[in-house]
Amino acid sequence: MAPPGRLITIEGLDGAGKTTLAAGLEQELRRRRLPVVALREPGGVVLGERIRALLADPVLDVDPRAEALLFAASRAQLVAERLAPLLRDGAWVLLDRFVDSSLAYQGGGRELGVDAVAAINATAVGDVRPDRTLLLRLDPATGRRRLAARGDEADRMERLDEPFFARTAAAYDRIAEADPGRVRVLDATAEPDAVLAAALAALADLLGPEGDSSGT
Amino acid sequence: MAPPGRLITIEGLDGAGKTTLAAGLEQELRRRRLPVVALREPGGVVLGERIRALLADPVLDVDPRAEALLFAASRAQLVAERLAPLLRDGAWVLLDRFVDSSLAYQGGGRELGVDAVAAINATAVGDVRPDRTLLLRLDPATGRRRLAARGDEADRMERLDEPFFARTAAAYDRIAEADPGRVRVLDATAEPDAVLAAALAALADLLGPEGDSSGT
Ligand SMILES: Nc1ncnc2c1ncn2[C@@H]1O[C@H](COP(=O)(O)OP(=O)(O)OP(=O)(O)O)[C@@H](O)[C@H]1O
Ligand SMILES: Nc1ncnc2c1ncn2[C@@H]1O[C@H](COP(=O)(O)OP(=O)(O)OP(=O)(O)O)[C@@H](O)[C@H]1O
Ligand SMILES: [Mg+2]
Ligand SMILES: [Mg+2]
Repeated sequence: MAPPGRLITIEGLDGAGKTTLAAGLEQELRRRRLPVVALREPGGVVLGERIRALLADPVLDVDPRAEALLFAASRAQLVAERLAPLLRDGAWVLLDRFVDSSLAYQGGGRELGVDAVAAINATAVGDVRPDRTLLLRLDPATGRRRLAARGDEADRMERLDEPFFARTAAAYDRIAEADPGRVRVLDATAEPDAVLAAALAALADLLGPEGDSSGT
Repeated sequence: MAPPGRLITIEGLDGAGKTTLAAGLEQELRRRRLPVVALREPGGVVLGERIRALLADPVLDVDPRAEALLFAASRAQLVAERLAPLLRDGAWVLLDRFVDSSLAYQGGGRELGVDAVAAINATAVGDVRPDRTLLLRLDPATGRRRLAARGDEADRMERLDEPFFARTAAAYDRIAEADPGRVRVLDATAEPDAVLAAALAALADLLGPEGDSSGT
């Protein structure tokens, strides 16, 4: 039987550097010969992609509660179809956003309440829980500048101005305070190399001494 | 300001006679000059119809948890877009299936647990609750015979054979026992006229004496 897998999630506001960190970590874990799989929701799951299309369709004017439930439905299918089998097979899964994104964005940002959104997501994920969550902490202004530099659409930039963004950031902070064993807060304003080094330090207990797996 | 509306839901197993009763009740409430609106989920709400299409697509092989979340998302949009405004405007809404169908089918039938499905649906419906629920109680064999007589597809008939059906019926019974003030159990094996009469009796306290509204 394969050793049990690991689930490492990466969280943070828009432009915090999640995808950049995921790429760096993937490379580093692969160098250590760990069976790493990097995913972001909807993770190539067809139902998830169809749900994302509904969420993005401006004609539908999706109600915030329906939005939270649709994200959770997409996540439930990802867990059943991909995550649970991967973890059963011993994979190290790096996941760019997971339940905490819904707690922060729908629970905090959209003001549905973190507890209500947690109840929905408890059903979605069953007993699949992150072994570690890396929260990239960033002030909204820096996130904004990065997305602007990346050339992101004006729509999204505007949203970042709103109190929505401050509520989402505050919800992330509360999640980290409530569960310090799982959630490690990283300073996302540091240079990418420094963020990656801090992430590896925050995973040290899971990774073990480097010599064990790289054979050097 | 309009007087507050009423929400009356009709529940029961496949073939129990929900749609038949809804039609009879609609006619009777209209005769009493009540501002009645008869609906069934997804109730003409576009997002709901799109979600139903996903649920019905055999290619997607929707996980039971995702299924429960998708039904709840459809319901959340129905509540926000149609139900809440109708009730605010004083309508008497007759609704063919609502939250209890998910509790019975996904909670009981699919074995997700009534409490887990209730938690999901609490977010979906907010403070919109049925003033009365009419549960059409029927043995599975009779439901089967009726659907066969109506010429329903073999797929569905087969499902009715399964323990799924017995678990769903048992969950409906538990819901009725837990909330006898809201849920009234009607014998669905009676003739349609007798079912309608029993339903009106179960709504008597909401309807008031007939003379008040019909003017006769
Ligand atoms: N540590 C960093 N310092 C400076 N710039 C960074 C850093 N990390 C990422 N960036 C840049 O900021 C932008 C956003 O980074 P990235 O796409 O990784 O963020 P994200 O959190 O994945 O954003 P999104 O929420 O949009 O997916 C990119 O242009 C990226 O190159
Ligand atoms: N009280 C009754 N006695 C005998 N037959 C009935 C009765 N009520 C309905 N029927 C017949 O049984 C069949 C199923 O009725 P109906 O469509 O109203 O059930 P339903 O609960 O709405 O079913 P579904 O779950 O498929 O929507 C129909 O052919 C209908 O004419
Ligand atoms: Mg990203
Ligand atoms: Mg019907």
